[in-house]
Amino acid sequence: MNNIDIQIPPSGVRGLKNDLFLKALRGETVERPPVWMMRQAGRYLPEFIALRDKYDFFTRCQTPELAAEITVQPIRRIGPDVAILFSDILVVPQAMGIEVLMKENFGPFLPNPIRTIQDVEKVIVPNIQETLGYVMDAIKLTKEMLNDEVPLIGFAGSPWTIFCYAVEGKGSKSFDTAKGFCFSNPVAAHVLLQKITDTTILYLKEKVKAGVDAVQIFDSWGGMLSPVDYQEFSWKYINQIVEALAYETETKNTFSDEKKSVLGDLGQTTEKSTKTHVIVFGKGCWFALGEMGKSRASALGVDWTCSPRNARYLSGGNITLQGNFDPSRLLSPIPVIKKMVHEMIDEFGKDKYIANLGHGILPNIPVDHAKAFVDAVKEYGKK
Amino acid sequence: MNNIDIQIPPSGVRGLKNDLFLKALRGETVERPPVWMMRQAGRYLPEFIALRDKYDFFTRCQTPELAAEITVQPIRRIGPDVAILFSDILVVPQAMGIEVLMKENFGPFLPNPIRTIQDVEKVIVPNIQETLGYVMDAIKLTKEMLNDEVPLIGFAGSPWTIFCYAVEGKGSKSFDTAKGFCFSNPVAAHVLLQKITDTTILYLKEKVKAGVDAVQIFDSWGGMLSPVDYQEFSWKYINQIVEALAYETETKNTFSDEKKSVLGDLGQTTEKSTKTHVIVFGKGCWFALGEMGKSRASALGVDWTCSPRNARYLSGGNITLQGNFDPSRLLSPIPVIKKMVHEMIDEFGKDKYIANLGHGILPNIPVDHAKAFVDAVKEYGKK
Repeated sequence: MNNIDIQIPPSGVRGLKNDLFLKALRGETVERPPVWMMRQAGRYLPEFIALRDKYDFFTRCQTPELAAEITVQPIRRIGPDVAILFSDILVVPQAMGIEVLMKENFGPFLPNPIRTIQDVEKVIVPNIQETLGYVMDAIKLTKEMLNDEVPLIGFAGSPWTIFCYAVEGKGSKSFDTAKGFCFSNPVAAHVLLQKITDTTILYLKEKVKAGVDAVQIFDSWGGMLSPVDYQEFSWKYINQIVEALAYETETKNTFSDEKKSVLGDLGQTTEKSTKTHVIVFGKGCWFALGEMGKSRASALGVDWTCSPRNARYLSGGNITLQGNFDPSRLLSPIPVIKKMVHEMIDEFGKDKYIANLGHGILPNIPVDHAKAFVDAVKEYGKK
Repeated sequence: MNNIDIQIPPSGVRGLKNDLFLKALRGETVERPPVWMMRQAGRYLPEFIALRDKYDFFTRCQTPELAAEITVQPIRRIGPDVAILFSDILVVPQAMGIEVLMKENFGPFLPNPIRTIQDVEKVIVPNIQETLGYVMDAIKLTKEMLNDEVPLIGFAGSPWTIFCYAVEGKGSKSFDTAKGFCFSNPVAAHVLLQKITDTTILYLKEKVKAGVDAVQIFDSWGGMLSPVDYQEFSWKYINQIVEALAYETETKNTFSDEKKSVLGDLGQTTEKSTKTHVIVFGKGCWFALGEMGKSRASALGVDWTCSPRNARYLSGGNITLQGNFDPSRLLSPIPVIKKMVHEMIDEFGKDKYIANLGHGILPNIPVDHAKAFVDAVKEYGKK
């Protein structure tokens, strides 16, 4: 790998004004946990709706100025400790030559779903800069706009989750068609899963080069699989991504003289292999936390059906955990939200922990309830 | 309770030709586990489709001859050890005065969903014989048709699951509206949940009087709740039902002289309080298996995301378990199905176990694959 054109210091020494999130990813002691919300740049924000009404879904994803603006909207409005780049997991299959549409009041629609080995063979592992360069441009622009206030997360869907959409052709309660394809044609399924994995690794490496401080893999549909099938059809591929990212990103330090003097010896390193922090979030994947906890991932996302105590136990007790407030619970009165957030932090423990929801924020959450969630975490140390 | 018009001996002494299922519910040693499949009377069977094309959904539920015929179809075709009465969980809210429609290519639709305390107040706890007498007639007819070959299960939705439909007004991936109602208006939510619970207890007691050998409670949407909210909004009510059914059904024995001589003292009891076997199936409710395992339920259903080993551990190791083959796995080639079924039985152990799927059978399963599942269990002892 040759990253010499990229000018990013190793994570944690970037001079971020708020590095709580990176501290939590490294397992360092913090005064209070960092906080962000999945889908924090989303439909509960009036300023997001204003842009949504003017630009269609993929225009928002593919126009760096729009993606960057949407990414920083929640930072201004509710003040989480981390930004996550506005994008969609389905830009990856799009780049692989699979047509993806976003239908009004329906969600994603793939008019030519993958159903045969011939379909699989037509799918390409693309040149990332040519197909997804707009994401990298959005990252660079967002980093400028964030001005080192908070770190930036980049994300991708897990290979299994992308596979689900590519085969099912749309959202589903149980992705039975996708699962049926795996079980009746496992060879073809594995070829497709490997192509998605290879693409995702290239994609996430480019995102790191473009400037994201950590990446998150969303395995939204991993919970549809049995534990045994999860290992075969999902975790095996997620772990390839974790392995590829966690230790292989080389960076060339290009600190300013000022920073060098502050950092001493560390600042003088000119070529360094750094660890990219990977967060793995498998919705409904409590049964795989044990395997995940032994991996090189920096943190694991947990949904609200797994209690903090169970999550610590199942994941082995050492890895940083992220989650797990029930998004619907943000409809509770604000005092109830704040009380439940403090109970959640008490149960996870303040260290090796990133406060978050257990899934994406819902469109019908009042903005002041979302802000109450963030505020409650910030007030935690001050009880 | 006055059951003197009903002539059912205590369960297990009814002279059923195949009592494997009741043995497993009582925790007795068996040569091989009993087997049935959730939704075994369903859309994968050509003879079911033939009736579906002639009669609409609620006609099938409300016409005893049709419900009984549909119930016995899979017994003839694939030979499971248990029948389950064809019906729907939504006949209960219907009886409570909530309009329920079944829309083509859409599923259940409730045109006037419950959204306020005023709506809740209008919901009634009905007279069961007046509103749901057709179910009792279907049970009596089915028992005649089954001719004591296999036992018959009656079922109901859990109060939480019925609540989800009553408030959401339709199926949903996450029932956010129903959950939002609980969290923003818990008092009204509990009033409605209690009304559903009271109705369900009356309904299931009538089913037992009409002749079912066991009942199953389907908590299809319990897995949408956090463990703490599950206790408050679902398990609390399910457990009321279990408590009401497990020990309170009084029956008057009316054995023939022949049976009396076989049964000795037991046969001479004329008034006896018997235990109704209750199976609780909470989809996605692995986190509640501990609490459930301490209850008076006779067995717990398990979905395929919880490994047999985890299910035994979480439920405390003593209670009979039922499940948990991934319904999509019936799309695997038949030899793979048979191998996986035997592995599943090995992992659960043959005793205190009822082989089943982890959820309902899918419409696209070939009949010979469904039969292979049942056959594999029957062949287990003969390996």
